[in-house]
Amino acid sequence: MSFDSLDALRALLADMPGPDGDAMAGAADRNGQLTKPPGALGRLEDLAQWYAGWRGNPRPSIDAPQVIVFAGNHGVAARGVSAFPPEVTVQMVANFEQGGAAINQLARTFGARMDVVPLDLDTPTADFTEGPAMTEAGVVAALRAGWDAVAEEADVLVVGEMGIGNTTSAAAIATRLFGGDAGDWTGRGTGVEGDALALKTQVVADGLAAHGSATDGLDILMRMGGRELAGMAGAIARARSLCIPVVMDGFICTAAAACLEKTQEGALDHVVAGHQSAEAAHGHMLEALGKEPLLSLGLRLGEGTGAALAIGVLKGAIACHSGMATFAEAGVADG
Amino acid sequence: MSFDSLDALRALLADMPGPDGDAMAGAADRNGQLTKPPGALGRLEDLAQWYAGWRGNPRPSIDAPQVIVFAGNHGVAARGVSAFPPEVTVQMVANFEQGGAAINQLARTFGARMDVVPLDLDTPTADFTEGPAMTEAGVVAALRAGWDAVAEEADVLVVGEMGIGNTTSAAAIATRLFGGDAGDWTGRGTGVEGDALALKTQVVADGLAAHGSATDGLDILMRMGGRELAGMAGAIARARSLCIPVVMDGFICTAAAACLEKTQEGALDHVVAGHQSAEAAHGHMLEALGKEPLLSLGLRLGEGTGAALAIGVLKGAIACHSGMATFAEAGVADG
Repeated sequence: MSFDSLDALRALLADMPGPDGDAMAGAADRNGQLTKPPGALGRLEDLAQWYAGWRGNPRPSIDAPQVIVFAGNHGVAARGVSAFPPEVTVQMVANFEQGGAAINQLARTFGARMDVVPLDLDTPTADFTEGPAMTEAGVVAALRAGWDAVAEEADVLVVGEMGIGNTTSAAAIATRLFGGDAGDWTGRGTGVEGDALALKTQVVADGLAAHGSATDGLDILMRMGGRELAGMAGAIARARSLCIPVVMDGFICTAAAACLEKTQEGALDHVVAGHQSAEAAHGHMLEALGKEPLLSLGLRLGEGTGAALAIGVLKGAIACHSGMATFAEAGVADG
Repeated sequence: MSFDSLDALRALLADMPGPDGDAMAGAADRNGQLTKPPGALGRLEDLAQWYAGWRGNPRPSIDAPQVIVFAGNHGVAARGVSAFPPEVTVQMVANFEQGGAAINQLARTFGARMDVVPLDLDTPTADFTEGPAMTEAGVVAALRAGWDAVAEEADVLVVGEMGIGNTTSAAAIATRLFGGDAGDWTGRGTGVEGDALALKTQVVADGLAAHGSATDGLDILMRMGGRELAGMAGAIARARSLCIPVVMDGFICTAAAACLEKTQEGALDHVVAGHQSAEAAHGHMLEALGKEPLLSLGLRLGEGTGAALAIGVLKGAIACHSGMATFAEAGVADG
């Protein structure tokens, strides 16, 4: 199963599997018998039942998390929107491959395999203030790279990104998808402030002006996104087709994911928000998507770091759900 | 080092070690060189430097977490303040020992050893609405049980509790330590509502009326606490003497810890708040103590569950801090 055009992907998104109702009901029944007061594990209980539904197993386990980090370069970086030079993208890819980045440490801590997918770093996408960032063939290739990177045996997926300039791209996407002005969705990124932030906001506004007619999520992704955003979107879609739950990362990951939701409502039902980042607009985007974050620790790094940290929470939830004794097994009075 | 009276413990608390300034400075220096924008790991960076200070190592690791669950029975439970009968305390201790409780699953998930310390379950403490819950010898014995339960080789400590009726005890302690009325600090516990909650609030008020003069934290612990609360307080004090950082659990654990802080300001400097529970007053207590929780997932189970989950966050923070490459090592431009 794959796709060779945006329309073919739209058709796939319209025909994706949902959660297994029997497994969810079985998990809810089990949850009611576990040795704890009803509801005492709070969101861990909801998470476990949601996960059970997607895995089709009322008593599931997490044995094979996968983290995929996509990297891309952005033509718009030449406009001076980042505190870091574009060369950092390829340097950080080497750092990922050598195991030296934050996401490497977190993937290891939570037992996840990690894959790195650099996407044509030598050829930045076009500056989206001057025209579409990618051609349809270009965005489809990046979406497919994401689709193909998902391991079929994975049982939870985190997608992350690296790409100097990509909060600018994500802000433009968010503004178009959710409304408001460039200023509502443009933030500090890796650390721009003052005049640099005003410039970045203007660049986002210029991008929006250049793509006045786009309304479909995948069309917006092509016009204002980047290859690493498309890679994340493709991987999230593939995970849905495989019923692999996804833990969503920060601002850029959420903007990429939102392109799927705005193309096909419900496309993110298999996705939980791993964290709320320090990028102010991230919280607004999560609210608009109806996703409550598991963590809120002021991270603003990307790479999938916040989501990888949240794998720990999900693992804890599943360990409790599947490992606890029932009142009957333990001989405990149930109130 | 130990103590045989509350005064002897007060003297110990007044002479506890602080964090290692050189290790903290070394950790801050290292943090500034890691391959990420400054501050991009948010609270993980603060946590790592705090942990480095207490461990006296600018590049520490976490290899030996310990979870200790203390259990006690409360005379006040006979007043009908809980949704569960008092027999559940001993039944849950058996469940802990057999590995069937939520805390067992979380300790295993985050690589912690787990110890269970039942404290005279056959003899509930006295009903604190009628007099002191414990004698000085009784509270000292429970504090020492906690003190002695800490493993010297542990590198992070979680203390949890089980004790039917103990949110009533914790609410009374919180009211006396932080001011306000019984209604401000009394909540649902394991699930009391309506008339039962009104009764519970009245019992807390009765307890406060019975101990009008107490102001010192350890004195309040003796009068209105329980053995498992004293056990937790003793363990937290012992961890301080060993420079072992502590992750604090929910409402009851925090009330016990607060007795130390109100006896000796700064006694909780080696303590981080693991989570904010669903018990409404827990957030107020954390605020009063100046502790910002790492997680807020609606848990209200106790046992150390929220804190154990937060071990994952702390492990992630230390893994990033100690495992990441520096800009120089990775050949990445630092902005």
